[in-house]
Amino acid sequence: MDIDILTPALRAASLAGGAAFALSGFLAGVRKKLDLMGVFILSLLTASGGGAMRDVLLGQPVALVRQAEPFLVAGGVALLALALRLHRLPRLERRTGFVVSDAVGLSAFALSGALAGVEADAPFFGVLALALLTAVGGGILRDLLVNEVPEVLRGGFYGSVALLVGAAVFGLNALRLLTPAALVGVFASGLGLRLLAYKRGWGLPRPSGAGD
Amino acid sequence: MDIDILTPALRAASLAGGAAFALSGFLAGVRKKLDLMGVFILSLLTASGGGAMRDVLLGQPVALVRQAEPFLVAGGVALLALALRLHRLPRLERRTGFVVSDAVGLSAFALSGALAGVEADAPFFGVLALALLTAVGGGILRDLLVNEVPEVLRGGFYGSVALLVGAAVFGLNALRLLTPAALVGVFASGLGLRLLAYKRGWGLPRPSGAGD
Amino acid sequence: MDIDILTPALRAASLAGGAAFALSGFLAGVRKKLDLMGVFILSLLTASGGGAMRDVLLGQPVALVRQAEPFLVAGGVALLALALRLHRLPRLERRTGFVVSDAVGLSAFALSGALAGVEADAPFFGVLALALLTAVGGGILRDLLVNEVPEVLRGGFYGSVALLVGAAVFGLNALRLLTPAALVGVFASGLGLRLLAYKRGWGLPRPSGAGD
Repeated sequence: MDIDILTPALRAASLAGGAAFALSGFLAGVRKKLDLMGVFILSLLTASGGGAMRDVLLGQPVALVRQAEPFLVAGGVALLALALRLHRLPRLERRTGFVVSDAVGLSAFALSGALAGVEADAPFFGVLALALLTAVGGGILRDLLVNEVPEVLRGGFYGSVALLVGAAVFGLNALRLLTPAALVGVFASGLGLRLLAYKRGWGLPRPSGAGD
Repeated sequence: MDIDILTPALRAASLAGGAAFALSGFLAGVRKKLDLMGVFILSLLTASGGGAMRDVLLGQPVALVRQAEPFLVAGGVALLALALRLHRLPRLERRTGFVVSDAVGLSAFALSGALAGVEADAPFFGVLALALLTAVGGGILRDLLVNEVPEVLRGGFYGSVALLVGAAVFGLNALRLLTPAALVGVFASGLGLRLLAYKRGWGLPRPSGAGD
Repeated sequence: MDIDILTPALRAASLAGGAAFALSGFLAGVRKKLDLMGVFILSLLTASGGGAMRDVLLGQPVALVRQAEPFLVAGGVALLALALRLHRLPRLERRTGFVVSDAVGLSAFALSGALAGVEADAPFFGVLALALLTAVGGGILRDLLVNEVPEVLRGGFYGSVALLVGAAVFGLNALRLLTPAALVGVFASGLGLRLLAYKRGWGLPRPSGAGD
C-alpha cells in the first residue's frame, strides 16, 4: 500500500473534516465559557485527537509534532468563527453545513485510520479499531475535556459508519482492489451513510439495566 | 526474560481477566444508558485500556491493532451478557463470580505489565509503574468515559495489589528465580490477596483536607 | 542539539516543578477525599503526565518507566505534605510558595518539551505543541481524573506562557543561539512572565455563546 494513493480529493476531504472537528471543539469551548486559549486548545485537540490516537496505536510519532496543519486549521477555524460570529448562531451543530462537514470528517478520518492500518499490515480487527478510534478519538477527547460523556457513546449511527469504512478498506485491500477510485467510493459511501442515518434518526437499541 | 515463560495457565488468566474487565465496561455502559455501539466501545476500551497503556509506556505499537482477541472478547462478552440478561441482575458487581474474575484480571494484568517491564530492562520503579497502570488503566479509562472519578482512586486495597505483584516480579527476576512456577505463585498470591482485601473490606486511610 | 545542554540549574528547576505538580495532584486528591493510594497515584500522574505526553507525541518510551525520579518525587511530596500537614492549610494553592513553584514547573516543563522538539527536528508548530502539552499535560490529566474541566482551559495567562517559551526556544535554535545561558534566560523569562500574569490577574477574553 502506497500512501500516495491518497488523491487530492481525499486530502481535501481530510482537511475539511479536520476543520469541522476543530469547529466542534471551538463551539464546545465557547459553551463551557473557556477563554480564548482554552477554546483554541480544545479546537486543536479535537481536530488532531483522532490522528494522534491512530499514530499512538501504531507506535509512531504523532503527526501533531511534525505538521503545521493542525495548528493552522485550529487557529484559522477559531479566528474565522469569531470573525463570522458563528458561535452566536443558535444550535449551529444542527445546521446543514455543520452536519455535512462533520460527516465529511467522520468518513475521511475513518478512511485515514483504516489506510494506516492496512499499510502497517494490521489484521482485520486492528483495521477496524484504527478506523473507529481515528474517526471518533477527537470527539471523545473534546467531550472528556469538557466533562461530558462522549457523544459517540450516547447514540446515533456514528461509530458504526467508521467500522463499516474500516471493513470496506480491509476487504478491498485483501482483494487488491484498493485503487484511488475505490477509496473515493468508500469515502462517499461513508459520507452518504452518515447523512442518511442523521436524517432518518437511525440509532441502535439501548440495553436497559437492572434499575429500569 | 523470554515472553514464552507465560504458561497456558497465565494466558487463560489474562483472558478471563480481560473478559471481566469487558463485562465491567458493559455494565457501566448499560447504567449510563448508552446505545449498543457505546456499550461495545466501552467494553472494548475497558478490556484493552490497560494493555494499551503498557504498550504506549514502552513506546510499542498497541496490541489492540495487532490482535483480534480484544475485539472478540469485548464483542463476545457483550453478546453473552445480553443473551443471559446479566445486566438485569441487580448489583452484579457485588456477586462472587464478578468479584473473582475482576480479581483474576487485576492479578493477571499486573503480572503482564511487570513482565513487559523486566523484559524491557526497566528499573524497579518502572516495573511498578507498568504493573500498576496495566492493571488499573482499563478501569480508569472506563470511569473517565462515563464521567466518574476512577474507582481505583477512591479506595479499597486494589492498586496496592498491583504494586506488590510488580515488586515480586522485579525481585524474582533480580534473583534469577522468574520461572513459570514462580509466576503462577505470584499470580495466585495477587489473586488471593485481592480477594482477602475485598472480603475483609481493607482500605487505606484518607487524609482529610482543610475544609473538614 | 545536545541534551547535555541542560545545566544543573535547569535540572533543579525541572525537579522543583515536578514537585509542585505532584503537590497539586496531592491536594486535588485530598479535596476529592481519595484514599492514600488514590492520592499517591494522582500525585504521580500529575507530576509525570506532561513528560509522558511529550514522550508519546515523539513516539518514544515514556520516562516514567525508565526513571525512579517520578515515583520518588510523588512519594516524597505526599509523605512530606502529610507530615507537615500541608493539606490542612486553607487555600494552599493561593500561597506564594505554591504559586512560585507551580510557575517554576510551567516554565521548566515547557522548556523541556521545546528542547525535545528541536532535538527531534520538529518544525515550528511541532515545537509549540510539545512545549504546550508538556507544560499543561500533567494538570489536564489531574483535572480529568477528578472530573473537572482542566484549569488551563478555564483561563489565566498560563498556556500562553508555554507557547511563548516554545517560540523562544525554536527561534534561538534557528539562530544557533541555543546556549546554556540562553536557556536559563528563557526559563527565567517564562517564570517571570507567569508570576507577573498571576499577580496582575491577566486573562484572555472569553467569547460568549448563543445563549448569553
